[in-house]
Amino acid sequence: MLWFVGAGINGYRGLSLAAVEVLKKCDTIYVERFTSLLSDSDIRGIESVAGGGNTKAVHVQRWFVEDGREILEAAKTKNVALVTYGDPLIATTHSELRARAARNSIETQVLHGASGISAIMGESGLHIYKFGRTVTMMSEPKSAISVYNTVFDNLLAGAHTLILTEYRRDDDNDNNKKGLFFLDPCQAIRMLLDVERDQRYGIFSEETFVVVASRVGSDDQRLVSGRVKSLAGVGFGEGPHSIIITGALHFTEEDALAALTVNLDSPSPDNTRAVRRMSAQMVERYAPKAKEAVQQMRNILRQDGGGSNSSGEGKNNKGMFEVLDNAEYYISDAERFLSQGRHELAVLSIGYAEGLIDALRFQKGINPWNP
Amino acid sequence: MLWFVGAGINGYRGLSLAAVEVLKKCDTIYVERFTSLLSDSDIRGIESVAGGGNTKAVHVQRWFVEDGREILEAAKTKNVALVTYGDPLIATTHSELRARAARNSIETQVLHGASGISAIMGESGLHIYKFGRTVTMMSEPKSAISVYNTVFDNLLAGAHTLILTEYRRDDDNDNNKKGLFFLDPCQAIRMLLDVERDQRYGIFSEETFVVVASRVGSDDQRLVSGRVKSLAGVGFGEGPHSIIITGALHFTEEDALAALTVNLDSPSPDNTRAVRRMSAQMVERYAPKAKEAVQQMRNILRQDGGGSNSSGEGKNNKGMFEVLDNAEYYISDAERFLSQGRHELAVLSIGYAEGLIDALRFQKGINPWNP
Repeated sequence: MLWFVGAGINGYRGLSLAAVEVLKKCDTIYVERFTSLLSDSDIRGIESVAGGGNTKAVHVQRWFVEDGREILEAAKTKNVALVTYGDPLIATTHSELRARAARNSIETQVLHGASGISAIMGESGLHIYKFGRTVTMMSEPKSAISVYNTVFDNLLAGAHTLILTEYRRDDDNDNNKKGLFFLDPCQAIRMLLDVERDQRYGIFSEETFVVVASRVGSDDQRLVSGRVKSLAGVGFGEGPHSIIITGALHFTEEDALAALTVNLDSPSPDNTRAVRRMSAQMVERYAPKAKEAVQQMRNILRQDGGGSNSSGEGKNNKGMFEVLDNAEYYISDAERFLSQGRHELAVLSIGYAEGLIDALRFQKGINPWNP
Repeated sequence: MLWFVGAGINGYRGLSLAAVEVLKKCDTIYVERFTSLLSDSDIRGIESVAGGGNTKAVHVQRWFVEDGREILEAAKTKNVALVTYGDPLIATTHSELRARAARNSIETQVLHGASGISAIMGESGLHIYKFGRTVTMMSEPKSAISVYNTVFDNLLAGAHTLILTEYRRDDDNDNNKKGLFFLDPCQAIRMLLDVERDQRYGIFSEETFVVVASRVGSDDQRLVSGRVKSLAGVGFGEGPHSIIITGALHFTEEDALAALTVNLDSPSPDNTRAVRRMSAQMVERYAPKAKEAVQQMRNILRQDGGGSNSSGEGKNNKGMFEVLDNAEYYISDAERFLSQGRHELAVLSIGYAEGLIDALRFQKGINPWNP
């Protein structure tokens, strides 16, 4: 039997009563430390609650869990527990090990623990249903691009983004805190500002409102919220850190941010306002230009038509005025659709209006568009 | 001092060691039951771990927590705990109470517990980073529409959707299971199929692959996965239930679904395939029609131009052929942009092509579009 035991986020004291009962009957206890904040004293704590020294808790490194063979072999004949930080199945490694066990007819059970992700969302006072996809930011620059895109998608939907930032234990046998690498929140934000300079979706600026959650679950947990420019000077201390880019805020969320975090700026700025769909950008840019082009074309046709006889060119121009009338209707439609959030119809309409105008342009060989 | 204590998802045995230490020093313990699965025997369990009967654990109903005045008043002078199912700050009610406490200078602390949401995601074997926005489905039909839209948004991003389904305790003083109302997963799925009939985004059909997670955290937890048509005959038993609509699946997720759930159909169907953006639907529907209209218009102009002299109408028609050539270029552009995932440009191009064609239609007073 293989037990996946979540230690929660309060050191070994995050273990549930149900988990302690299970550990007491286990022959072998592995404690995974790579993705974990469990210290040497936590290991001793696990041993003491498991039965006062009869069962040893063994530190294992990531490769040991990824390899998994020794764990699975032991679990075939003995009661084996794998203790991990947080909720055990959040890490893909553990979930995959469980599937392998099942395929090898080794029974598994999971004792869930408090999850860091859930705790961070809750501590922020933001509504959990308003979080979009969660993403992890590593220190390599490429990672920032995918984080940036996830934040963009979430903001378009008005949703918050939880960004977990890299932390790793560089020397698994060393409990010295210097062995832990944490990506600093200020560096992470700078990386996102760099991506903004390239991508220009208008997500990140000095005015963007963010929440930085540090060491959630530990005694010196701290949440700081404010605009990017206000956070620049803040020392966030040791990790793990995570960053929340807020979407549209409900007033109870604003109240919670003000009351429950170290709040440096009013939580009222809505980060979604700066983010415009490409469709909205198109209609906002093209509609005024198209209106001008219609006017320009009307003037040209009037001069042109006035100079000719009542038949011939003049007669043709009459049909062209009908085309321009329609173009104007569709420009208004595009603006109305945009205001209704019907983005595809808005783009279709502005494209259609441009086509109407340009058909005349091709026929008359004149350009009504201002550069 | 007001402690928010998460009981986790294993009855009172889901309490962490840290939570038990806190409960032991509390003068008053409120146990919230509305959003909770804590039974009478769990209440007795909480009392026994808190100090063997010296401190009573008091059932409280939802209105009592929402009102909150008695809790806050007590917390001004005493150590008060509010024990809730799962992770305490997931419920907005608790988060708001905490903000109110902070504004009234009442110190608060949170003991996180295993969260049902995190546990369900983990038990499914799906990767947590691939879940989009989580949504709750109530039994009233209107709720199904917003669930449907959330699933659509998530599928467009390739993401999974966790749908929590309604459960409530109709009589808070009655621990009889008949007092619990659970939305049946089959009914929830039928409601979503009904919305599909109206909205026609192509999300839900008998072939859609879903995971139903029932009673996660309890001893008779069960996860069933398969196509909608296969789930129709399954009795899911008592709740709480939740439903996962999978997005694009990684092969390790397929393996996990096959190994860790009662798997009725191969997890290979990709639910995102059926979901087409409105922009794609537009271009796919309009491009062939526009091609036909161009052809139709060419034929009309050729007959028209052939019957007239080399000047006049015929000369004008020549400019019109240039317009039709351009329409064809833009139809191809629309199809190319679509294949590149540049949806806005695809819609803009097809709209433009239609405008070019229709300018001629308005001028000539003829309709080249097949009904």
